[in-house]
Order: sequence, then C-alpha cells, then structure tokens
Amino acid sequence: MDHTKISQKEKNNENDKGCTPVTVLGLGPMGQSLAEAFLKYGHPTTVWNRTAEKAESLVKQGAVLANTVADAITASSLIVICVLDYDASQAILTQVVNDLKGRTLVNLTTSSPEKARKTAIWASEHGFDYLDGAIQTPPLAIGTSDALILYSGGEYAYNKHQKTLKSLGGTATYLGTDPGRAAAYDISLLDMFWTSISGYVHALAVAKSENIAAKDFAKYAQELIKTFPYIMTHFADDVDTGQYPGGQSNMISAKAGMEHIIHTVQGHGIDASVLSAIKAIAQKAIDEGYGTDGYSRLVEVVNRA
Amino acid sequence: MDHTKISQKEKNNENDKGCTPVTVLGLGPMGQSLAEAFLKYGHPTTVWNRTAEKAESLVKQGAVLANTVADAITASSLIVICVLDYDASQAILTQVVNDLKGRTLVNLTTSSPEKARKTAIWASEHGFDYLDGAIQTPPLAIGTSDALILYSGGEYAYNKHQKTLKSLGGTATYLGTDPGRAAAYDISLLDMFWTSISGYVHALAVAKSENIAAKDFAKYAQELIKTFPYIMTHFADDVDTGQYPGGQSNMISAKAGMEHIIHTVQGHGIDASVLSAIKAIAQKAIDEGYGTDGYSRLVEVVNRA
Ligand SMILES: NC(=O)c1ccc[n+]([C@@H]2O[C@H](COP(=O)([O-])OP(=O)(O)OC[C@H]3O[C@@H](n4cnc5c(N)ncnc54)[C@H](OP(=O)(O)O)[C@@H]3O)[C@@H](O)[C@H]2O)c1
Ligand SMILES: NC(=O)c1ccc[n+]([C@@H]2O[C@H](COP(=O)([O-])OP(=O)(O)OC[C@H]3O[C@@H](n4cnc5c(N)ncnc54)[C@H](OP(=O)(O)O)[C@@H]3O)[C@@H](O)[C@H]2O)c1
Repeated sequence: MDHTKISQKEKNNENDKGCTPVTVLGLGPMGQSLAEAFLKYGHPTTVWNRTAEKAESLVKQGAVLANTVADAITASSLIVICVLDYDASQAILTQVVNDLKGRTLVNLTTSSPEKARKTAIWASEHGFDYLDGAIQTPPLAIGTSDALILYSGGEYAYNKHQKTLKSLGGTATYLGTDPGRAAAYDISLLDMFWTSISGYVHALAVAKSENIAAKDFAKYAQELIKTFPYIMTHFADDVDTGQYPGGQSNMISAKAGMEHIIHTVQGHGIDASVLSAIKAIAQKAIDEGYGTDGYSRLVEVVNRA
Repeated sequence: MDHTKISQKEKNNENDKGCTPVTVLGLGPMGQSLAEAFLKYGHPTTVWNRTAEKAESLVKQGAVLANTVADAITASSLIVICVLDYDASQAILTQVVNDLKGRTLVNLTTSSPEKARKTAIWASEHGFDYLDGAIQTPPLAIGTSDALILYSGGEYAYNKHQKTLKSLGGTATYLGTDPGRAAAYDISLLDMFWTSISGYVHALAVAKSENIAAKDFAKYAQELIKTFPYIMTHFADDVDTGQYPGGQSNMISAKAGMEHIIHTVQGHGIDASVLSAIKAIAQKAIDEGYGTDGYSRLVEVVNRA
C-alpha cells in the first residue's frame, strides 16, 4: 500500500488546528467516551452507531452523525471502532470493506489474539492499515491521565496516528508489530480482572449475609489489596524461575481456608460455584504431590487441563 | 469467672521488663512468626507443635519448648493457637480443656463465624476467656507495621492482652463482642483474596501461553489493580443503596468479554472452569433481565443460589 499518497490526502483533511478528522464507530459507553475525547482535543469527529439516538449528546458537542457506515468511513482516514465484540465489529465492517481501502482502522473492541491476527490479515488483503488496541480503563478515564490503552500491529499506523490517539489520554503503549500482542495482554489482564472483580462482588454478598455493610467491608478489602503487588511480584518470580516455594503459605493450607469459606457461604444459601472450581484445582495440585508447594504452582497445573 | 484473681496471677508471672508470658500452639509458618514476634518484644514464650522439630529455630531465639500441650498451657495465662483449621485446633484443645480454666485463649486459626461462636460458648462452659482473631497478612508481615489482625469476642480478654498482642505488629482492630465478627470479615476477605489470587495465577498461565514473561505481565497487572479501590467504592455504594446502574459497563458487555477469554484460554488447552462458573452467574443475571445493569447486581444474584 502506498502510504505517501494517503499521508497527502490526510493532510488535506486536517482542520485549521492541525487536527486530523476521526470517525468513531460504536457508541456504547466506551465509544461515546472515545468520541468525546477526540472532540475535546479539537478533532473533526464523525460518529455512527447502529442505534442512532446514542449520538445525540455527541452531536451537541460538535460531532457529525453519519447516516450510514459507508458515509462514516469515507469522512475520515482514521477509523476507530469500539463495539461489543468481534462478531459485532465484523458485522459492521464486512459490508463496507472496500471503503476502508487506503485508510487506517484502529480496533478498540475487546478481542482475542487469534481474532486480532485474523483481522490484520483481512486488512492487508483489502488494502487498509490495521492497528489493534485494548483499553484497560473504564470510559470515565478516557481523555484523562488515568487512561491506559495497549496497542499492537501496524507500526506505520501507530506512528502516523500517535498524536491523534494521544487525545484518548494517559498512557498509550505500543507492544510491537504482532497484531495479537495487545489482545494477548488484554485477555490475560481481563482474565485476572473479571475473576478478581467477581471475587469482590461475591465477597460483598457474603459480608451482607453476615450483616456487614458494603461500605465497611470495602474499607478492609481496600487494605487487603495493598498486599497484592508484593504477592504478584513474588508469584511472577516463581513462574519465571519455575520454582514454587511453599515456605510462607502452601497449597494444603490454602485449600483448608477455601473449605471454611465454602462451608460458610453455602450455609448462607449463597452460590459457591466459583470457589468450588478454584478448590478443585488446588485439590488437583495436592493430588499430584504439590501440597507443600506455594500457590503459584497452579500456573503449571491449570496448564494441563 | 473472677477476673481479679487472674490479673493478680498474671502479674506475678511478668518478667522484669513487665512482659507477660505467652504460649504459642502451632508452629506452621504463621505460628513461628507469631512466636518470633513475642520473643522479639521480650515476652517469655513457650511453644508447642505436633511436630516438635519445628521449634528448633525458636528455641535458639529463647523460646521454651513444652513437651506436652498441657505443659505449654500451664506455662502462661495467655495462650495463642494458630494451626491448620478448626478441626486441628479442637483436636489439640479438647484433651486439655480443664487446663485452660482461668486463662485466655486467642485463636488465630482461620475459621468460620459459626465455629468461632461455638468455640466461645465452649470456652465459657469451661471457664476460660476467648478472643477470636483473623490474620490478614502473610507471616513475614507479623511483627512489622504491615501486619493486620482483626479480633472479636471477649472484650475483657482483648483489653487485658492488647499490649502483649501489639507485639504482633501493625494494626489490631477489635470488631466488637460477637465472637464471629472477625471470622465474618475474614471469610469475606478471604473469599475475595483466594478468588483474586487465583485469577492472577490463572492469568499468569494465560500470559505464559502467549509467550509473555510473568515479570512483564506483573507490571501491567499491578497497573490494572490501581483501578480496583475506585471500583470497590462504587460497587459498595451500589450494594448499600440497592441500585446497580450499568451506565459505564454492563452485564452483557462483561459476559461478552468473558466469552473471548474463555475461548482463548481453552484454545491454549488451559483450564477455564473458574471463569466458566463466573460467566454462568452473569448469564443467570442476564436471563433474569439484568443485562443492562452494572456488574455489582451479581451481589443479589449469587445470594439466591
Ligand atoms: N465499558 C468499559 O468499562 C470497557 C472497558 C474496557 C474495554 N471495553 C470494551 O469496549 C467495547 C465497547 O464496550 P462498551 O462499554 O462501549 O459497550 P458494549 O455494550 O460492550 O458495546 C455496545 C456497542 O456495541 C454495539 N453493538 C453490539 N452488537 C452490535 C451488532 N451486532 N451490530 C452493530 N453494533 C453492535 C452497540 O450498538 P447499539 O447501541 O446499537 O446497541 C454499541 O455501540 C467492548 O469490547 C468492551 O469490552 C469496555
Ligand atoms: N501462612 C499465611 O500466609 C497465613 C495468612 C493468614 C492466616 N493464616 C492462617 O494461619 C493458620 C496457620 O497457617 P500456617 O501458614 O502457619 O500453616 P498451616 O499449614 O495452615 O498449619 C500448620 C500447623 O497446623 C498444625 N496441624 C495441622 N493439622 C494438625 C492436627 N490435626 N493436629 C495438630 N496440629 C495440626 C501443624 O502441625 P505440624 O507441624 O505437626 O504439621 C502446624 O503447626 C491457618 O489457619 C491459616 O489459614 C495463614
């Protein structure tokens, strides 16, 4: 693909502040925040959403609402898409793939490494640049210093649009040319995120059943997670060295603790399926002879499912 | 029970630094740390463990190793027990319950609210003071400012031994006279802890399968958990007000994210049982009509298992 021509075309589209036009496809909570951030930094912003009403507040802020996906795409050479999932983004993009030719697509929809790589191949087959991205922070953080977005894939696209993407705020990290790299980090981080957040929500239910106000529980929970960075560093060392010392706390002790929790939780009529699944993995490790190893040993145990 | 007499007896046992004698039953990683902390602050410390060899390093530091549980108990009026679980502590204590008469038992073994309350009744039936405690930090933190221990139950026992228990370091919080209160917080906190830590360990396995070094992953994971205190406060507000707004992120979106993770994880041959159990709960919420609610809604959904 001839990038010189596109750059020229792009330049012609810049507004008087030197801001390049951007199109945002998808106006869920995240898409709306992305569009708002582009508008705030002065980018001429075109938006499209399956349900057009969601553009209302953005239009008031200066966005142009496109009637069709094709209109939205042809309005800018930088297209950002952020919808529910891969199937939704494919449903939107396949019908207009020829309009994407010569443009840059930045996909901030949560996806898997495999699908990100597939999309990159599809992009090169259809002559457009592809940058995959993974947002690590909630919509409210977009455009602020708290935002964290990981990118990988099209290096040319990243370098070219880095300045514009800076409008989304905070830390933008480019993880290299493998289009699946951002999604690989994202999937791993989301795995931890949803499991942890589910643990917190479940704990709130347990606390409630013991007449502990959520506000009071949150205070101690926030104290407890201060110990996590320390544990995280240690467990990461264990994994990278392949040694799982159980000197401070071992698998048998962990499993005994889980049994107390499950017993209490079930006594309150609360679902214990998640912790039961966790306990089963710890039990598997014990059965395999790792009872006196540290909990980090499970990295190897879950990997032989 | 006549506390005046005991106080007098206790006073007679103080050493020249005014430190009261303490007995520690159970010398796993935690029991050893507790005994070390008492020794460090000058308390005459008697120890006992089923496997006597574990006392070796403590004896070098000045601890007295008792031959029998009865000898250990009669050596001090403050007895601290910290073993694997409730069954282990009962196995140790029932044989010597008459020797406990007139003394104070502080149980730092992880337990359930129900068992802590049962132990308190058992204590009053046998004429000894009972304080239940729950340690929130790893052994290494004991005796340092990082230690966090929750207590509840015997108020007299807590007030009387507060100074001695301060040797264990950090923050000691007395949660009131209900002997089950510390365990209720503990169970809820441990529920969150083990679920979250399992999420992290699992994520390390996923990252590994994507050729991401644990050290590199840990760095981003530590960034990500900086957003947790914010989320925790918001979810606690939701629970206390009974409102679960999905404006920033909703159940359907969360479930779609989980599906991507499960798909990728299973594609690598990694166990996905935990996240599958989590997804099933989110699906239940969606089926019940809560798809556009926030994730905190699950507090009510898991409570109707
Ligand atoms: N919200 C967060 O906290 C957060 C954080 C990090 C990453 N993300 C990721 O960002 C992406 C967007 O999330 P979100 O929170 O904005 O909301 P979402 O509920 O995940 O996605 C809503 C958007 O997807 C569109 N959509 C869904 N199915 C569609 C289909 N079949 N065809 C066309 N459009 C479809 C919706 O259009 P309609 O309006 O017409 O329904 C809407 O624009 C997701 O991949 C999510 O994982 C979100
Ligand atoms: N380690 C941590 O990070 C941590 C943090 C917070 C709370 N805790 C809690 O502290 C308690 C102790 O934990 P730990 O890490 O020290 O190690 P642990 O492995 O949970 O417990 C080991 C201790 O229990 C004894 N024990 C086990 N079964 C017994 C039985 N049937 N009869 C007599 N003694 C028995 C062991 O004696 P032998 O030496 O003879 O086997 C040893 O003294 C647990 O309830 C744990 O949940 C631990």
